[in-house]
Amino acid sequence: MSENLLGQALERIATEVDVCLDALLPLPGDARARLVEAMRYAAIGGGKRMRPLLCAATAEMLAVDRELAVRVGCSIEAIHVYSLIHDDLPCMDDDDMRHGKPTLHREYDEATAVLAGDSLHALAFEILSDASRIPDPFTRAELVACLAKASGAQGMAGGQMMDIVAEEREFDLHTVTRLQQLKTGALLAASVEMGAILAHLPEEGRKSLRHYAHDIGLAFQIADDLLDHEGDEELAGKALRKDEAAGKSTFVSLLGAERAREQARALVDQAIGHLDQYGSEADLLRAVARFVVERKK
Amino acid sequence: MSENLLGQALERIATEVDVCLDALLPLPGDARARLVEAMRYAAIGGGKRMRPLLCAATAEMLAVDRELAVRVGCSIEAIHVYSLIHDDLPCMDDDDMRHGKPTLHREYDEATAVLAGDSLHALAFEILSDASRIPDPFTRAELVACLAKASGAQGMAGGQMMDIVAEEREFDLHTVTRLQQLKTGALLAASVEMGAILAHLPEEGRKSLRHYAHDIGLAFQIADDLLDHEGDEELAGKALRKDEAAGKSTFVSLLGAERAREQARALVDQAIGHLDQYGSEADLLRAVARFVVERKK
Repeated sequence: MSENLLGQALERIATEVDVCLDALLPLPGDARARLVEAMRYAAIGGGKRMRPLLCAATAEMLAVDRELAVRVGCSIEAIHVYSLIHDDLPCMDDDDMRHGKPTLHREYDEATAVLAGDSLHALAFEILSDASRIPDPFTRAELVACLAKASGAQGMAGGQMMDIVAEEREFDLHTVTRLQQLKTGALLAASVEMGAILAHLPEEGRKSLRHYAHDIGLAFQIADDLLDHEGDEELAGKALRKDEAAGKSTFVSLLGAERAREQARALVDQAIGHLDQYGSEADLLRAVARFVVERKK
Repeated sequence: MSENLLGQALERIATEVDVCLDALLPLPGDARARLVEAMRYAAIGGGKRMRPLLCAATAEMLAVDRELAVRVGCSIEAIHVYSLIHDDLPCMDDDDMRHGKPTLHREYDEATAVLAGDSLHALAFEILSDASRIPDPFTRAELVACLAKASGAQGMAGGQMMDIVAEEREFDLHTVTRLQQLKTGALLAASVEMGAILAHLPEEGRKSLRHYAHDIGLAFQIADDLLDHEGDEELAGKALRKDEAAGKSTFVSLLGAERAREQARALVDQAIGHLDQYGSEADLLRAVARFVVERKK
């Protein structure tokens, strides 16, 4: 039953995000068309949409209007997609495939990829500052603050920098954990937090959700390392085992596959424990937590 | 006298921006230090600070608190600096020098340059959403909306895309004007607009300021084309005459140097005309307009 709940939720959010991004990215009638085409190529029709799902599931649990939650979810997804575009560049991870199709700089060119990433970055904040869609200015400002912090040097971008340094230096488990909390965890946590912001949830109520998000963020990354170690490239739609080849410290290299798997499962149980105060309205967030470690791609 | 007024204003804003950015970018004690060092290298101690100057001069004319105006000016400068970093990348303009020193990717590496640009981009919105500095949520949300629109695909990034296409296609004067309005004009106009937002200036009063900003934005770019055509590389601190070599349409290639110069001067007169309703409190904005075409770098 919970698998069905999750499957439907994943399908639903994927469609909603595509519809919303399609409306947000109309093709201009001038030379900027190439830029918007590239943004659409990268942003529409691919990815698990984990971040919008987390935002929408939290919002739904807290009785927030669905359309609003999806729009806010799209702002987070815009940040996620821009980070993937820049991450895939030759000077970064130099990846050729993403979501089973050529990466943006392979399909277009590097300059277009840099600009499309930058434009999706700006789009995220355009979405969050649209007064016609999010009427309350305090909510808009709080959403922007949350997303900017989670994506900048104190969050995702900071984690990516540590990840680059990780190729030169050997990191211990503590540092790898910190790296992953920033690189992946910060934006996943923001997804939950932004759902709570939309619901005007008081600080007290946000704490347990933050713990939930923290735990699934870490579990998500351990699962990613395991998939990178054991997964199928075709199913993943991207190159695997690059970290191993580069000699980078990961949860799997530091703990071994078995202990890493145990750790991820323990984190998921812990995450679900943080939802104890909620009833069946939190079932989707519980299912998401389990999905994080059980997914095959 | 007006030259003195401007000289002092330029010196003052340069110091204020450096002090503010220095405080905004403390070095972290972990592997992210490299990222923040790179952000500091690019953002502190260089550039004319035209955008913070425009923001602060507008704000001062409208009696806004100086410290607040400088902070908001720093958010615009963060966007400007990130765009220069990405613009200088090998896949874009491939420039080696900026502000008289090696470009960021030459001093560090390309991956660090991409990430430092992205992090400065996020920093801009972190600055604008800091409730402890800009207490009014409506003002925060309005500032974010203005800056996100000016910097994204509908503004600066869109103009950069047109600029790339300009290398392959021949543009007429109308299209070059549109390109420059987006690439440079949008952010310069946002600088004035954000000063007006801080002052809660009603829409009616913003119109003339928008016309002023539009005119100096265009004059600024024509002057840039003239400097690129006639200027001194050492004084400019960057490579010149690259557009000419690439056969790109510019105001100078389309109008000739003499007509371009006349056009820039006419725009400056027109810009100053839009300030007629103001008294001596607009003298600095008038001086900025003249500086835009008379500067030597």
